[in-house]
Amino acid sequence: MHVIDLIRKKRDGGELTADEIGFLVCGAADQSIPEAQLGAWLMAAFLRGLSDTELAALTKAMRFSGETFDHTGLGRATVDKHSTGGVGDKTSFLVAPIAAAAGVAVPMISGRALGHTGGTLDKLESIPGYRTQLSLAEARRVLEECSVTMIGQTKNLVPADRVLYDLRDRTGTVESPWLICASIMSKKLAAGLNGLVLDVKTGSGAFLKDPAAARFLAGLMVKTGEDSGTRTAALLTSMDQPLGRFAGNWVEVWESVELLRGRRHPLNEDLRELSLVLAGWMIHLGGKAADAVEGRAIAKTKIVDGSAIEVFLRMVTAQGGDTRVFADPEAFHTPKFRRELRAGRSGFVACMNCEQVGWAVQRLGAGREKAGEPVAAHAGIEMLAKLGSGVQAGQPLCFMFADEEARFAEAEQLLTEAIVIEDAPEGIPPLIGEILTGSGQILKNSFPPPLART
Amino acid sequence: MHVIDLIRKKRDGGELTADEIGFLVCGAADQSIPEAQLGAWLMAAFLRGLSDTELAALTKAMRFSGETFDHTGLGRATVDKHSTGGVGDKTSFLVAPIAAAAGVAVPMISGRALGHTGGTLDKLESIPGYRTQLSLAEARRVLEECSVTMIGQTKNLVPADRVLYDLRDRTGTVESPWLICASIMSKKLAAGLNGLVLDVKTGSGAFLKDPAAARFLAGLMVKTGEDSGTRTAALLTSMDQPLGRFAGNWVEVWESVELLRGRRHPLNEDLRELSLVLAGWMIHLGGKAADAVEGRAIAKTKIVDGSAIEVFLRMVTAQGGDTRVFADPEAFHTPKFRRELRAGRSGFVACMNCEQVGWAVQRLGAGREKAGEPVAAHAGIEMLAKLGSGVQAGQPLCFMFADEEARFAEAEQLLTEAIVIEDAPEGIPPLIGEILTGSGQILKNSFPPPLART
Repeated sequence: MHVIDLIRKKRDGGELTADEIGFLVCGAADQSIPEAQLGAWLMAAFLRGLSDTELAALTKAMRFSGETFDHTGLGRATVDKHSTGGVGDKTSFLVAPIAAAAGVAVPMISGRALGHTGGTLDKLESIPGYRTQLSLAEARRVLEECSVTMIGQTKNLVPADRVLYDLRDRTGTVESPWLICASIMSKKLAAGLNGLVLDVKTGSGAFLKDPAAARFLAGLMVKTGEDSGTRTAALLTSMDQPLGRFAGNWVEVWESVELLRGRRHPLNEDLRELSLVLAGWMIHLGGKAADAVEGRAIAKTKIVDGSAIEVFLRMVTAQGGDTRVFADPEAFHTPKFRRELRAGRSGFVACMNCEQVGWAVQRLGAGREKAGEPVAAHAGIEMLAKLGSGVQAGQPLCFMFADEEARFAEAEQLLTEAIVIEDAPEGIPPLIGEILTGSGQILKNSFPPPLART
Repeated sequence: MHVIDLIRKKRDGGELTADEIGFLVCGAADQSIPEAQLGAWLMAAFLRGLSDTELAALTKAMRFSGETFDHTGLGRATVDKHSTGGVGDKTSFLVAPIAAAAGVAVPMISGRALGHTGGTLDKLESIPGYRTQLSLAEARRVLEECSVTMIGQTKNLVPADRVLYDLRDRTGTVESPWLICASIMSKKLAAGLNGLVLDVKTGSGAFLKDPAAARFLAGLMVKTGEDSGTRTAALLTSMDQPLGRFAGNWVEVWESVELLRGRRHPLNEDLRELSLVLAGWMIHLGGKAADAVEGRAIAKTKIVDGSAIEVFLRMVTAQGGDTRVFADPEAFHTPKFRRELRAGRSGFVACMNCEQVGWAVQRLGAGREKAGEPVAAHAGIEMLAKLGSGVQAGQPLCFMFADEEARFAEAEQLLTEAIVIEDAPEGIPPLIGEILTGSGQILKNSFPPPLART
């Protein structure tokens, strides 16, 4: 088999066989195929797209390029949730312990901040002592003890993705729905899941801003998961404004713990609602509820009876974290500098460039410019107004937190441009749009419409 | 400027500026841009194509990536002929001395055997002592003395093409009309030509078998040449059978010298006709004839009066070659082994897979498997029948020459499959099809129709 023939075949719109795709993936993983050829193949795949058969073969070859997890013997169904990335997107801290409290096991493997979006690992590491890099054996023990573990990717899980993702990043081939699907699903399937809920973001703060593109990706991922024996559902959700009140690292853990303790706030009803729906689907796909509506009801009880927060704190302890900070999370929030952003005029918050809000959070120090850089645990923002909120000129729109005063100038400019105030409120995109399920069923707005804001 | 942005722009069908293309070409030439990125950009350019502006910018940036020739001061117009490559395509040995004898200077830079096609340099090197790698100063002296020099590419002429061609070869991006045009024209323009005649091959033995693709490439090259101040014409010519009687190395030099001496043969009238027409265009574009028809008439006289062969022998001597071999070129043809291929049935030679004939020549030792390998000077074939020839079962169709007996088996099989004998002759494609000129004029079959074969 010659790489050049496979490149030419794809270039001319042909379909590669599973063996041919396996040859490319192995050659990428062991670095025996020169990067020039992988770059050309990725671009051909980007522009020509992949057939269903090719996508299945690519996902499978990547999935088995390294070690895979096997949770049989655990005695519980394993379920995970994956988000395509957003701003203030902290549902993982809620859904993982809720679903675990409801009787499913959640071996959640998360990533770091990327571009304008936050990373679950960076947020977790704001808890003093919390270790995200566990060995396979350690993760297994935490999962057995707590029914949930939240860790980083191990080095040997889907090594082909590490090589291909780095190449895609450098060759302008990131935004392909087929390549995104193979990258996400190979890792999720290698993690050995019985069920998977995908939170596919759309809108101004998502990577895929176009709803049609997001929906296409969701369809690919659901089919790929179901065809591989993992029950899969995808929710198309709005990322037109930060989710909840906070965006950053510790501030997001703090906000999540408050909700797990049943303490609601008018500005994070969206976060609570989405978390309950996602957890409901996890509980349903894990076999603990007849449908997602019943799952949502169960999820709610796990907050009310205190079992979800108890599971969360148990997991933090098991992974080396110091839970004393949760006694007063607000007191632990200790950025060196705080600043207010005030409304330039009176009116209603009509729309937001949510990606730009995310870049402001990154510039404050919560994200990174380059891979490997440290992040500031207490940098971030607190939103005091959201879409539809009425504001008076001079009223604070949000607080900014940073460890260096010099970081405020750029963040303030980005936020001022990003938050648009008009005379009248505009329609708010529904929080949850279509839901794609394995049976090909599409549920439209099957959950409560977006919350009215005041 | 970031490479990734330029890749993404091309990927999405955008148009790069001249500065952006210059940045990529410089980065390729000095190898500061990683191969993965160049591979991805080449594939995007292959699949999206280039605009006229982009093609002009790419050709220009490549042309000036190294040293360029300047023939002002020579006192004569400089003209070259370039062929896209074929089997038995030896017109260079005829047109270069004919045009030189007619008063234009011909600084001809040629290449080596590639795939199923022969290379002028390999053929020239079958002349004992002939040096194809001259310094710039040596080439200039030969050109002043003889009005013609036939040499290989110098190391510093268009170094960007060396890098990009190697990458295209490995990334499946060779067959793009835009990339082929930039590769050929950057080198021809760097050679400092006043006129250029392009012999664009079509048919079963050409690289671009599809006539529409060949015509598109011809149009791109004529426009690129004319826009850069070089008078350019392109002839679309048939490569449906080997040109002339012989294909190989020395055998082609031998055949050419016979024609330069005015010795015609019924089986190489096609070679003579095409050479006269191409030389006629060179003489016309070099300002020595009012049109190509007058140029052809002048070309004919340069054979008849012996001045063309005289120029050729003078050039061979000036480049170190031993002209004693031309006293009896047939006697110098000394392959170690000869074999006949006989007709399997009676009938007419109806069609040929000319590429396969070329591969047979390569397998006999006249071409190479890998760059850098030596070629056999006396390997090759002699055609005893051409398209339209009537043959009897058992009659020889061609002779094969090789230095190793083991090489005959595969060549014989390839030739047997390639040469198709039917009960009745089929129509023979015209030798010269459309001719594209700088004024946008398209001349259709303006020269004698293909010769009838008996």
